[in-house]
Amino acid sequence: MFEDKNPELTPISKLGEFGLIKHLTEFFPLSNESSEVGVGDDAAVVNPGNRKVVLTTDVLAEGVHFNLGYVPLKHLGYKAVVVNLSDIAAMNATPTQILVSIAVSNRFPVEALEEIYSGIQAACGRYKVDLIGGDTTSSNSGLVMSITAVGIEKEENIVRRNGAKPNDLLVVTGDLGGAYMGLQILEREHTVFLANPNMQPEMEGFDYILERQLKPEARTDVKGILEQLDIKPTSMIDISDGLASEILHLSDQSNVGFRLYEEKIPMDNLTITTADDFNLNPVMAALSGGEDYELLFTISSNDFDKIKNHPDFTIIGHAVEKEDGNFMVARGSNQLVALTAQGWDAFLGNQKED
Amino acid sequence: MFEDKNPELTPISKLGEFGLIKHLTEFFPLSNESSEVGVGDDAAVVNPGNRKVVLTTDVLAEGVHFNLGYVPLKHLGYKAVVVNLSDIAAMNATPTQILVSIAVSNRFPVEALEEIYSGIQAACGRYKVDLIGGDTTSSNSGLVMSITAVGIEKEENIVRRNGAKPNDLLVVTGDLGGAYMGLQILEREHTVFLANPNMQPEMEGFDYILERQLKPEARTDVKGILEQLDIKPTSMIDISDGLASEILHLSDQSNVGFRLYEEKIPMDNLTITTADDFNLNPVMAALSGGEDYELLFTISSNDFDKIKNHPDFTIIGHAVEKEDGNFMVARGSNQLVALTAQGWDAFLGNQKED
Repeated sequence: MFEDKNPELTPISKLGEFGLIKHLTEFFPLSNESSEVGVGDDAAVVNPGNRKVVLTTDVLAEGVHFNLGYVPLKHLGYKAVVVNLSDIAAMNATPTQILVSIAVSNRFPVEALEEIYSGIQAACGRYKVDLIGGDTTSSNSGLVMSITAVGIEKEENIVRRNGAKPNDLLVVTGDLGGAYMGLQILEREHTVFLANPNMQPEMEGFDYILERQLKPEARTDVKGILEQLDIKPTSMIDISDGLASEILHLSDQSNVGFRLYEEKIPMDNLTITTADDFNLNPVMAALSGGEDYELLFTISSNDFDKIKNHPDFTIIGHAVEKEDGNFMVARGSNQLVALTAQGWDAFLGNQKED
Repeated sequence: MFEDKNPELTPISKLGEFGLIKHLTEFFPLSNESSEVGVGDDAAVVNPGNRKVVLTTDVLAEGVHFNLGYVPLKHLGYKAVVVNLSDIAAMNATPTQILVSIAVSNRFPVEALEEIYSGIQAACGRYKVDLIGGDTTSSNSGLVMSITAVGIEKEENIVRRNGAKPNDLLVVTGDLGGAYMGLQILEREHTVFLANPNMQPEMEGFDYILERQLKPEARTDVKGILEQLDIKPTSMIDISDGLASEILHLSDQSNVGFRLYEEKIPMDNLTITTADDFNLNPVMAALSGGEDYELLFTISSNDFDKIKNHPDFTIIGHAVEKEDGNFMVARGSNQLVALTAQGWDAFLGNQKED
């Protein structure tokens, strides 16, 4: 797809490493007060004032995390930023800066990198984070993006995974399973396209779940909403690998168990009908699909009245004693189904139950 | 070399992503007071007190930055950390934490990643930095490492590339060109080995330059030495791409020109004799070879007496007005040779003059 057969495309070697970085980052002005030195020195300088610095890093690798056959490069750049900002949001912190490293084979022209950076720029604008550093290098094959996100936050606001207590309520933002069903649509249409390149992909009507997959958003808004509700979560994590896997992480680190109520899991209608079309159980898409980038957190049961009718949040269960284990209470019965980490694993591929 | 033909080696898929990260990072205790949360939550938390945070990131890609045919994995892990710490040192800041991302194909067994991490651990111990985060994922081919280094420093200590003034002295630490000549030895012996795997490589007597290439050190000690001498550099950069390229960066950002004296460039005898063996000009190895990870900086000429006899430093030139350009004054003559950025470029390969 990106073989340099078009003589109007610019080979990366024409700009060289320094020229390339300068070219790609020139439209990234620093806008946060805390960003003192950006791209162009040996290192960037951030001034956190008297606050804490929150740091996370995520790699996306071609053929593992994305398929350039159906993921537009601009979306890839956007998503690569978002998945990192989601981790900062999951600490209840405010993202402020990113550093972007890209290893890319010479089959990519400069224009392909420009597309990726236009997506990065869109995310920086949307989330008000500054690009302050990075590295761009060639690789022997494929595209690997590694982004480090920085957040700055007052100590008292930071929420870890380890503070849940028995009887705390388990709460999730938004709806789940959509990103996974969007991926199924993309993979189906890509398979059809490979078999017959004249076929038009049938994407119509799937906008919401395609966007959940291709252009997810980080729930950086949740921190402000919770502050307004006067709620500080006792533990928090983002949903990158699937609800079940994230519940087990909170369980592990908070030393509690959980009860999850199947009937409470929030799902969009399109997720449910698409899952039906694929003969998949939509609950499995929510439990194990991953990539929803919603936030999962626990709050004291004393906060129940503050949150119970809020449209952004769904109470899906509660914490129990560690020895009571992690179980989903099946819809319409009291049957307990053990929660297992069947989430997405880059080394195993998508091991889904259906 | 790392094909998983040995039944005693452990495939990465056996541990899975979370198990792998846990396994690889379990022997990395946090030792810096500023490291509040390390590996295991959505993000790490660093407490810089009232100081600034310095951040840098560098990618190393197999086949571009290293050849696993002759670079031991432990050395690779060590060097990947060091090249980032060198960037922190070049801001006159103290490195405190790192985040490590690795994309690796399934042809690498767990034991290969353990080797890389043992090198990372050795560097963390040597430089007293904490591993606080990272991501490990599979890739379609090859090994790509991306490390982000964090430093914490008082604002008044930080030195950028943009403060050199005409008449400032140009100073370099250590000696130059050794890493490049070490690479020549490794490549020659690797070629011999590929032609005849029974040949023993002739590495004896080349220890110093091999170590400069395989196990470079970051000059994090320079900050303390300069403090003892009561010198604050006016600009600073580390030598990753070659002396000429770095001088041009200081020139560009400080808006001055430079005169570099060929006869002053510090080189080890082994670098010179090895260059002679390869029919290379050793000065070109210093100017364009790169990977020496020494520091290049400017100081006020008023500080001349403080530094002139110090064994760690060599005064190699001085800054001039911008319009007077960047030239090397040739040995034994007053001939001016224009300095050009023939340094190492990941997109061009090693374009050396000889």
